[in-house]
Amino acid sequence: MTNNQFEGHFLGVLGGMGPLAGATFMERLIALTESQCDQQHIPAILWNDPRVPDRPAGHAGHGEDPLPWMENGVKRLVEAGARALVIPCNTAHLWYEQLAASTHVPVLHIVQAVIDDLRRQGIAKGRIGVLGTATTLRLGLYQHELRAQGYEPVIPPAALIEGGCADSIRLVKNNRLAEALHPALACVAYLREQGVDAVVLGCTELPLALPHPLRVGLGVAITDSIDALALAGLAWYRSQP
Amino acid sequence: MTNNQFEGHFLGVLGGMGPLAGATFMERLIALTESQCDQQHIPAILWNDPRVPDRPAGHAGHGEDPLPWMENGVKRLVEAGARALVIPCNTAHLWYEQLAASTHVPVLHIVQAVIDDLRRQGIAKGRIGVLGTATTLRLGLYQHELRAQGYEPVIPPAALIEGGCADSIRLVKNNRLAEALHPALACVAYLREQGVDAVVLGCTELPLALPHPLRVGLGVAITDSIDALALAGLAWYRSQP
Repeated sequence: MTNNQFEGHFLGVLGGMGPLAGATFMERLIALTESQCDQQHIPAILWNDPRVPDRPAGHAGHGEDPLPWMENGVKRLVEAGARALVIPCNTAHLWYEQLAASTHVPVLHIVQAVIDDLRRQGIAKGRIGVLGTATTLRLGLYQHELRAQGYEPVIPPAALIEGGCADSIRLVKNNRLAEALHPALACVAYLREQGVDAVVLGCTELPLALPHPLRVGLGVAITDSIDALALAGLAWYRSQP
Repeated sequence: MTNNQFEGHFLGVLGGMGPLAGATFMERLIALTESQCDQQHIPAILWNDPRVPDRPAGHAGHGEDPLPWMENGVKRLVEAGARALVIPCNTAHLWYEQLAASTHVPVLHIVQAVIDDLRRQGIAKGRIGVLGTATTLRLGLYQHELRAQGYEPVIPPAALIEGGCADSIRLVKNNRLAEALHPALACVAYLREQGVDAVVLGCTELPLALPHPLRVGLGVAITDSIDALALAGLAWYRSQP
């Protein structure tokens, strides 16, 4: 064990899924902290192992199981000193129960963070458009909890999930961020035409496709699952004694 | 110990100094990797503890010693599985010898990474402007090694180090990135007027003040100590058996 003076309320970040979402989470955590100097920021550890097998393929049983890799990351983060965990990957939350059960530290849930962000934006009810991977949309990762908390989820049609969301996500993972914008915009436009009250960027690649400075012009409220999770991490940190 | 299947050539990143430089290092490491999918990126761990006491004050004996905090970060990263380390903070390299001696894994030196980057840009000799904290410039962190490797370092006058570099660095640490641009530009303009062949952004806050898309218009080659260190980390990773 190390000297007690170095202990602290470290936030552990299970990243790598994808790696840019993990790095961007760290950047947004800092940007969203009010601070006058380095020392006022929150201590955090990022485990950015991108070798975790593909989550949608693993969940469908078409690829290697990613769960042992994620459990390893959780274990390493807690051993390194993390006192709470966040996972900046929505699809990984399909294994949330197993991951939360594998450790004694709290794991902040990305869906709850997004719902808290909707309320922070003053959206307490209404129709909420959800973008994400085909897997999370099919399995209802967001829909179930949105309904339970008084919202009506709206999902794009299958063709747009494949041609819009999935394309955009793939291009981000390919380091082709500029090209990822157009398919993401097509998804937002569809949901806006459905009259939704907000759009959830419910895959952590989508915020990278839609830069913050462009969002003001979209004509619909956006909740960004990376930013929402960073705000949840900050709230956890501030709540510590 | 964990299962061997999860072992790998993890790059350990001793961040937090400042925290945004640490997060940006991770982002640039990913952006600079040619990859078609998550799994082709390199596994990395970021220890982003911003509580490390102020480096310039500590080095001058006017504040708490940051070395034990940095040694703790090195130890935690190596325990977590890092097989090589980088430190995206130039001023921290004033303690390089002690940090490198505290661990059995290689610590890639940021100054050598920058000199390698100059050569990569085709600049094998000439006058090299250096920007950084007053402490590293006064102690010659870059000047000594640049001279040893055939370059002639050029440093801004004291008034510009304080009013330009230090201002820009402070504003970045204050999350005021847009305001940090002007003082950084003033430093680059001064060095360009001195006829330097390149300008080293020799403090990891300065790349955050001078966004990449603006650099093409500066009229002088730039070497960015975050990017140079990321490229050194990638080169280390690729050299592993």
